[in-house]
Amino acid sequence: MDRYLVISSDGHAGPPAAHYREYLDPAYRGAFDEHQAQVKQMLEVARSMRQNDEFVEKWQRITGGDGGLTAAYESEVRNQVLDEQGVAAEVLFPDADVLGTGRISASPFGSGLAGGAGTEPELALAGARAHNRWLADFCAAAPHRRIGVAIVPILYDIDAAVAEIHAAHELGLRGVLIPTRWFDQPAYHDPRYEPVWGACEETGMVLHTHSGSGPADYGLGPGMMAIYATEAYWWAARPLWVLIWSGVFERHPALKYVIAENGAWWAPDILAKMDEKFVGGHNTEKMGKAFREAITMKPTDYFDRNCFLAASTPGVEDMERRHLVGVGNILWGNDLPHPEGTFPYTRYWIRERFHDLPEDETRKMLGENAADVYGIDRAAVAPLVARIGPTREEVHGDQPVAPAPA
Amino acid sequence: MDRYLVISSDGHAGPPAAHYREYLDPAYRGAFDEHQAQVKQMLEVARSMRQNDEFVEKWQRITGGDGGLTAAYESEVRNQVLDEQGVAAEVLFPDADVLGTGRISASPFGSGLAGGAGTEPELALAGARAHNRWLADFCAAAPHRRIGVAIVPILYDIDAAVAEIHAAHELGLRGVLIPTRWFDQPAYHDPRYEPVWGACEETGMVLHTHSGSGPADYGLGPGMMAIYATEAYWWAARPLWVLIWSGVFERHPALKYVIAENGAWWAPDILAKMDEKFVGGHNTEKMGKAFREAITMKPTDYFDRNCFLAASTPGVEDMERRHLVGVGNILWGNDLPHPEGTFPYTRYWIRERFHDLPEDETRKMLGENAADVYGIDRAAVAPLVARIGPTREEVHGDQPVAPAPA
Repeated sequence: MDRYLVISSDGHAGPPAAHYREYLDPAYRGAFDEHQAQVKQMLEVARSMRQNDEFVEKWQRITGGDGGLTAAYESEVRNQVLDEQGVAAEVLFPDADVLGTGRISASPFGSGLAGGAGTEPELALAGARAHNRWLADFCAAAPHRRIGVAIVPILYDIDAAVAEIHAAHELGLRGVLIPTRWFDQPAYHDPRYEPVWGACEETGMVLHTHSGSGPADYGLGPGMMAIYATEAYWWAARPLWVLIWSGVFERHPALKYVIAENGAWWAPDILAKMDEKFVGGHNTEKMGKAFREAITMKPTDYFDRNCFLAASTPGVEDMERRHLVGVGNILWGNDLPHPEGTFPYTRYWIRERFHDLPEDETRKMLGENAADVYGIDRAAVAPLVARIGPTREEVHGDQPVAPAPA
Repeated sequence: MDRYLVISSDGHAGPPAAHYREYLDPAYRGAFDEHQAQVKQMLEVARSMRQNDEFVEKWQRITGGDGGLTAAYESEVRNQVLDEQGVAAEVLFPDADVLGTGRISASPFGSGLAGGAGTEPELALAGARAHNRWLADFCAAAPHRRIGVAIVPILYDIDAAVAEIHAAHELGLRGVLIPTRWFDQPAYHDPRYEPVWGACEETGMVLHTHSGSGPADYGLGPGMMAIYATEAYWWAARPLWVLIWSGVFERHPALKYVIAENGAWWAPDILAKMDEKFVGGHNTEKMGKAFREAITMKPTDYFDRNCFLAASTPGVEDMERRHLVGVGNILWGNDLPHPEGTFPYTRYWIRERFHDLPEDETRKMLGENAADVYGIDRAAVAPLVARIGPTREEVHGDQPVAPAPA
C-alpha cells in the first residue's frame, strides 16, 4: 500500500460537564455540580495568574477559536479532524482540556490524568465510571477508529477496580488507565494490586499510565513550573521499573503495558542500568540477590515483550535512539487536542520526524505496532487509510507539507 | 610532572561510636547511648535478613578482614591506604559504614548521608556538630590531604544551620553537606533557604549533596531493593534542577555545588532538555515564561560555572559522555572505604577507565578540577604526588596493574 496506516496512541476525548452529568449515577450529581463550581473558580484564579496570554491567543487563532475541543466529543467533528490529519485510528484518554487554554473538558471529580489526586476515592470511582460509559458510547459511534481506555482508580478499593475493568471490557473499551502515581498508597510492587494485573491480562485490556501527574513534595516558589516540567518525564516513567522489578510481567506474560505521552529517549539508559544490575555490576554487587528476587529474565527482556512507549509528538532524540529502545516498542501519537501535540499540523510533523527513516520502521512506529498492541482490524480501516493516510511521497519526498507552523 | 595528582572527591570517614561520644555535647550523650543500642539491634535484624553473605565474605577477605574501616578514623592508617592507592588528597564525607558489611561507623543519630531522616531535628543537629568536630581534628592531622565536609541539617532551623556553616568554617572544614532530600519540608527552591546559600558563598564553603537517600513512598515488597537502586541516581540528582531553576546560582554566582557519588552519565540529557525548555520548545510553549522566572542564562551556563559531578568509581558511560557533561565539571572519586568504590584496587580502576583518554583530560578529572574547586595547595602536595601518584606509564601504558580484582 502506498499510504501509511497512522494510529495515534495518544488522543484525548471528553464532553463538557453537562454531558457527563447524565452518565453519572444519580447519587453523585449533587456533588458533581458542587465540584464543577469549584473547578470554575479555580480556573478563574489560574487565568488571572497565567503568564502565557500570548500563547493562548495564538492557539485559539490557529485552531479557529475552538482549541480542537469540539472534536473532543462530537463524533463527526472528530472524524473530520482525524481525516485532515491523516490519522486512521486512535487510543482515547480522558481530559481533552484541563488547563484553561479553552473550554474545560475534564473527567468528573479529577478522576482522569491526575489519577484522582485530592479526591475522595468514592467520588473518583464514580467519576471514572461516568467517563467510561460516555467513552463507550463515543467509541461505539466509530468502532474501528476508536480504542477507548477506561479510567480505573486502583489505589483504594481493589475489588471495585477489578469489577470496573470487567465492566469496561464488557462496554467494549480496550485499555485501562491507572494512576501514574500511587500518592500515599502502597507502590505498584505491592502484592495487593495482583488482582488488577490479573484482570487486565485475563481480559486482554492494555494497561496504561499517562504523563501529567507531577510530584506533590514542593509548593509555590521560584521556578516551580520549570522544576515540574523537568521532572514530569521521570514521574511518568517510574511505574516501568516498579512493575518490571516486582515481577508483574514475570507472573503475567501476556500483559501489555503502555506508557503514554512520555517520549522514548529516556528508556535506553535506565534499562541498560537495570540490566547491568541484574547481571551483577560492581556498584551493586554488595546488594546480593536483590535483583533476582522476583524476575528470571533481564529487565529488557520484559520490556521488549510487554512494554510500549507511546511517544506522542516524538522529538529528534526519540527517533535517534529508536534502535536502542526497540522500533517495535515505540508507538507514535499526536496528543489531539492538546496544544503540545501535533494538531493542527500533524501531516507536517509526521514528515518532519519520519522523512529520513526507512519505510519499514516508519510503518511500524506510525501504526503497525499500535495495531498489534490493540488488536486493530486492519481490513476494516484499510479503505479509510486508502483515502486519508499520508503517502510515502508525502512523508519521504521533497515537497513540503501544508499547513505548517508559522 | 610524570605522575598524576589524584584527588578523591568522595571519601568517607568516621570513628566507632565510643569516639563520637566525647565529641557530643554532654546533654546528648544519654540519647546517643540509647540510639546506638537501637542501631545495633537494627543491624542484627539486617544481618539476619541479608541475602549477600557471599559478597560480605569476599569483601572481608580482600580487605584483610578490616573492610577498610580502621582507615576511616586512624590517621596514619588512612595515609598508608591512600599512599597504596595513589591518592594524594580526598574530600571527606561521613558514614564510612552503615550497612553492616563490617563494624559500624556512622554519624550520630543518623545525621549523615540519610540527612537525618526519621530523627528529631535537635538530635540530628547535635549529631552533625559532633561529627564536624571529630572531622576537624581528623583533617588537622593531615591538613593538605584532607578536605572535610561538614554535615549541616538545613531543613528545620535555618539560623542554626547558618551558624553551623560558620562554625565549621572556623574549624577548618571546607564544604557543607546538606540533606539530599527535603522530606516533608519545603523544597530547595523555597526562599527560606536563601541564608544557607548565602553563607556558603560568603565563606567559600562548597555545597554538597551525596547519593544514598532514597524515596520513602514505598515499603517492603518484591523487588524493593532493586527499585531503590534503580531510582537512587535520580533522587541524588534532583537538587540540581531545583537549585538551577530557582535561581540559586543566579543570585550566588560564586557558589560551588558538588553532587557526590552519582556518576555523570545522566546529566547531559536532563540539561539538554532544560536548555530546550529555556529557549522555548514546542512541548512546553504553552507554559509561557515559566522557564525564565528566576534565571537569565541557559541552565547549562549555570551548570558549567557552578556545578560539579563527583563521579565516584566512574563507569564507561561517564567517561564516554565527558564532553557532553564538560571535562571541567567531572571529579573522580574512589568512595573509600565503601565496597562499591575502587578500594583496594584503585590503581587498577584508574588505569581501566583512563587508559585511552588524553593526558590533559585525565589530569583534570583525576585531580586538577578538584584542586580548583576546593582550593588545594598544589605545592604542598607536590612531594607526596612525586612519591605515590600513578605515573603516566602506569595509567596509559601496556603493563597491567596489580593488585587487580579476581
